[in-house]
Amino acid sequence: MLRPIDTVLTSHLVEAVSAAMPSARALFDDLAANTRGSHGISRDPYGRGEQYAYRLVHECATRLELQCTWDAAGNLYITRPGTAANTRAIVIGSHLDSVPNGGNYDGAAGVIAGLALLEAFARVGLRHRCDVSVMAIRCEESSSWFTGEHGGHLGSRMALGLIDPAELDQAVRPDTRRTLGQHIADCGFDPERVRRGPAHLTPARVGKYFELHIEQGPVLEMKALAVGIVDSIRGNSRLRDSRCIGAYNHGGATPQEIRQDAVVATSDLVMRVQRKWEELHAQGKDLVFAFGRLGTDPAVHSLSKVPGETRFSLDIRSGSPEVLTVMRAFVTEHARLIEDERKVRFELDAFTLSEPTVLDTSMVATLRAGCKALGLPVHPMASGGGHDAQEFTRAGIPSAMVFVRNANGSHVPEEAMTMDDFELGTQLLAWAVAAESDA
Amino acid sequence: MLRPIDTVLTSHLVEAVSAAMPSARALFDDLAANTRGSHGISRDPYGRGEQYAYRLVHECATRLELQCTWDAAGNLYITRPGTAANTRAIVIGSHLDSVPNGGNYDGAAGVIAGLALLEAFARVGLRHRCDVSVMAIRCEESSSWFTGEHGGHLGSRMALGLIDPAELDQAVRPDTRRTLGQHIADCGFDPERVRRGPAHLTPARVGKYFELHIEQGPVLEMKALAVGIVDSIRGNSRLRDSRCIGAYNHGGATPQEIRQDAVVATSDLVMRVQRKWEELHAQGKDLVFAFGRLGTDPAVHSLSKVPGETRFSLDIRSGSPEVLTVMRAFVTEHARLIEDERKVRFELDAFTLSEPTVLDTSMVATLRAGCKALGLPVHPMASGGGHDAQEFTRAGIPSAMVFVRNANGSHVPEEAMTMDDFELGTQLLAWAVAAESDA
Repeated sequence: MLRPIDTVLTSHLVEAVSAAMPSARALFDDLAANTRGSHGISRDPYGRGEQYAYRLVHECATRLELQCTWDAAGNLYITRPGTAANTRAIVIGSHLDSVPNGGNYDGAAGVIAGLALLEAFARVGLRHRCDVSVMAIRCEESSSWFTGEHGGHLGSRMALGLIDPAELDQAVRPDTRRTLGQHIADCGFDPERVRRGPAHLTPARVGKYFELHIEQGPVLEMKALAVGIVDSIRGNSRLRDSRCIGAYNHGGATPQEIRQDAVVATSDLVMRVQRKWEELHAQGKDLVFAFGRLGTDPAVHSLSKVPGETRFSLDIRSGSPEVLTVMRAFVTEHARLIEDERKVRFELDAFTLSEPTVLDTSMVATLRAGCKALGLPVHPMASGGGHDAQEFTRAGIPSAMVFVRNANGSHVPEEAMTMDDFELGTQLLAWAVAAESDA
Repeated sequence: MLRPIDTVLTSHLVEAVSAAMPSARALFDDLAANTRGSHGISRDPYGRGEQYAYRLVHECATRLELQCTWDAAGNLYITRPGTAANTRAIVIGSHLDSVPNGGNYDGAAGVIAGLALLEAFARVGLRHRCDVSVMAIRCEESSSWFTGEHGGHLGSRMALGLIDPAELDQAVRPDTRRTLGQHIADCGFDPERVRRGPAHLTPARVGKYFELHIEQGPVLEMKALAVGIVDSIRGNSRLRDSRCIGAYNHGGATPQEIRQDAVVATSDLVMRVQRKWEELHAQGKDLVFAFGRLGTDPAVHSLSKVPGETRFSLDIRSGSPEVLTVMRAFVTEHARLIEDERKVRFELDAFTLSEPTVLDTSMVATLRAGCKALGLPVHPMASGGGHDAQEFTRAGIPSAMVFVRNANGSHVPEEAMTMDDFELGTQLLAWAVAAESDA
C-alpha cells in the first residue's frame, strides 16, 4: 500500500534533499580526492580503495546518528528505524567499489543518494512504518577484479545467500593473489559464516530494494533527461567463439560463383541480424547486438586468396526474454540458410544465456508517479549493464532502479554526473521510498 | 595471313603430336623425379631445381637436332628455322621454375608442349616461313622466391627489355641472400648485358607469342573441358590495407541506432560489392573479388564492446579495364554512402592498379578455328593468374594462350594434368602455330 504523498510533503522532501546536497557533494569530493590514481578512480574491492569508501560512509552515518551493522561479507547497512514492528525493510543499495581506472560515481552515487535521503527524512521528520536501510555493497565490479570461476556481483550475492561457497576459493584477485575468502578475512569479516549461511537478506526481512545508479549509456544525455526509470535489466545470449568455414582458393583463378567465401557468408549473417534488429526496433522491442570480435585467420589469410575462414563472437542483449529467444532462433536458422546458399559451414558454439531481469511493476509505477509529482518527464528504459538489483530480483525481493544522466561513457575516468541531476535523482528516490515505506 | 590448314595436314599434325607424347611424358617424369622435395616440386629460379630443368630441356633439344641459343639472362631458345629470311619469329614460351612446394606442370607443361610441337613439325616435315622458337623462361614465379622491390616475371621482362636495371640489385632470394644479378652471374650468364641492353626480344624480331599453361582455377574441370582459349589475363585493383573507423562503446548500454559499429559498416560494404558482382556477372562481365584479410583489432576488441574498428584488404580482378574502373568507383562511392548512413569513417588507401591484358584478337580467332578443326569445344576464358604473356603483350608482341585442365588447384603439390588433356592442348597449339607460321 502506498503512503499518500501530498504536495506539501513532496515540497518538504524536495527542500530537505536540497539541504542534504552540500554533505553529499563533500562525500563525492572526499572519495575522489582519496581514491584517485594516475589514470582515474580505483576502489578495489576489499582493498585500499573500497575500504576508504567504507570508512568515509560509516563516519557519515555515525555523524547522522544512524544505526550501522555489517554482515559476514562486509556489506554495511545504515538504518533509520521504522515505527512498526514486524514489517519488512526497504533497502536502498549500491556498491562502493569501482572498476580499475573508472569514474567517481559508478556505484558510490547510489550509496550517497541513500545517505542524503536518510538525512532528508530526518530533517522532514518522516515517520515510516518499516525500517529504511542504506546498503553499501561490496565488490559489484567482480569481473574487473576477480579472475577464476565466479558468478559476479559477489557482495550482493553473498548477502542474499546466492553464492556457491566454492566461489570464495575460486575467485582470485590476480594483483594480490588472494582469494575472495582471504580478502574478506583480511578486512575482519567472516568468510566461514558466508559459506555456512544463513543469508543475511531474505524476502522475509526485506520487502523492497531500490537502487540509484548513473546510466552507463548515453540515452538520457541524448534525450536531454536528468533521470530515467529502469524497468528491466538486459540479459544476453552470446556466441563466444564461433566460426564460418569456407575454402581458401586462388583469388584470381577461382570463379566467384563457386567460391566458398567465409567473409561474404559472415557479412551476410551480420547484415541479416542488422535487418532483423531494424524490424524488431520498429516494433518497439528492446534489442542490441554486436559482433564484437570478427576476423579472418592471420596465419593463413592473404590479400590474394579467397578467405576460407572467419571467427566471430556475437552478443545479443534485450530486456525481454522473448526477444532473446527469437534472436537465437533467427541466427541459427539464417546461418543454415547461408550455409546452403554460400557453400560454407557455420560452427556456432552453444548460445550462453543470462536471462533479462524484469523489475517490479508496482515499484516502477511508484517511480512513474514520483516523476509526475516532482514535475519530471517519465522515461522508462532498459539498463544495458548489469546491477545488484538483478540479484535482489533473483532472490525474490521486488526491485526497481533510478538512472541519473552520464555524459561521458561508463567505466572510464571521464564518466560524469552533475550535482543538479543527482539532486533530481535523489528527490525521486526519496519520494518513492517515502511512498513505499508505509507498506 | 593464315596458312590454310587442310584436313589432311590437320590429321598429320594430330598423329605427329601423339607420336611425340612418349618423349613428353618421359620429360615430365624425369623432372618430377629430380625436382621433388618432401612436400612437392621446387624448381628454384637460377638454383638447383630450375638449372636441372634447363639441362634436361637442352639435352632434349640437342637430341632433336634443334638450334639452341641463350640470352644474357639465361633464357633458352630452341629454334626450328623457317624457310624465308626477313620474317619475324613465332615464340612458344613458358617458364621452367616452380613455386616452392608446387606441382610438376605449372610452367614446364608449356615448354614440353613446345618441344613436342617441334618434334611433330619435323615428323610432318612442315615447312614454315618464319623461325619457330620454344623459349624456356627463367623465374616467372618471382614473387614466390625474390623479396625486395621488383616487378615480377623477371625472366621474360629481362628478355623483353622491360626491366629496370635496379631490379637486378633489389630482388633478393632470402634463402640464398643473393641478388638476382648475382644469381644470373652464378649460372654463367651476363647481368651487365641485361642492364645495358638492348633487349633480346623485340617486336621487330618476334611477330607472335604463344603460351600453353595449366589452368590455375577449376573452370575447365567444372565444365568438363580439356582445353580453353585465354582471351585476357585479369588485371587487378587492390586496397592493400584499409580501415573502417567507428567507435568502441559499451555493448549493452549503447542504443543500437546511435552505434558506430565498424563490423556492421564493413559487412554492409562487403554485401554491396557482392550484389554489384551479381549484377555485372549477370551481364556477362568478367569479375572476381575477395576481402581476403578482414578483422577487428585483437588489442582492443571484446565480446561485450561495440566494435570500433576493422582493417581489411580488397582484391578486385577482371579481364576488362572498364570493369575495374567501374568497381573502383563503386567501392569509393558506397563507402561514402555507408559513412553517412552508419556514422563511420572509411580510410581507404589508394587503389593499386595492374591493368588487365587483352590478348591478341586475331591469334585468339586462330585458336578458335583450331578448336573447330580438331573437334574441340571452343571455350574462351579469362586467366585469373598472371603469366609471361602479359609481358610480351606489354612489349608490343601479339600473344595468346592455351589453358589445359587442372583438377586439383594451383601452386600446390596436388596440381594435376592428364597426358590426354596435354595432348589435346599440344594439338591445338601445333595447329595454331602451323596456321600462323606462314605470316
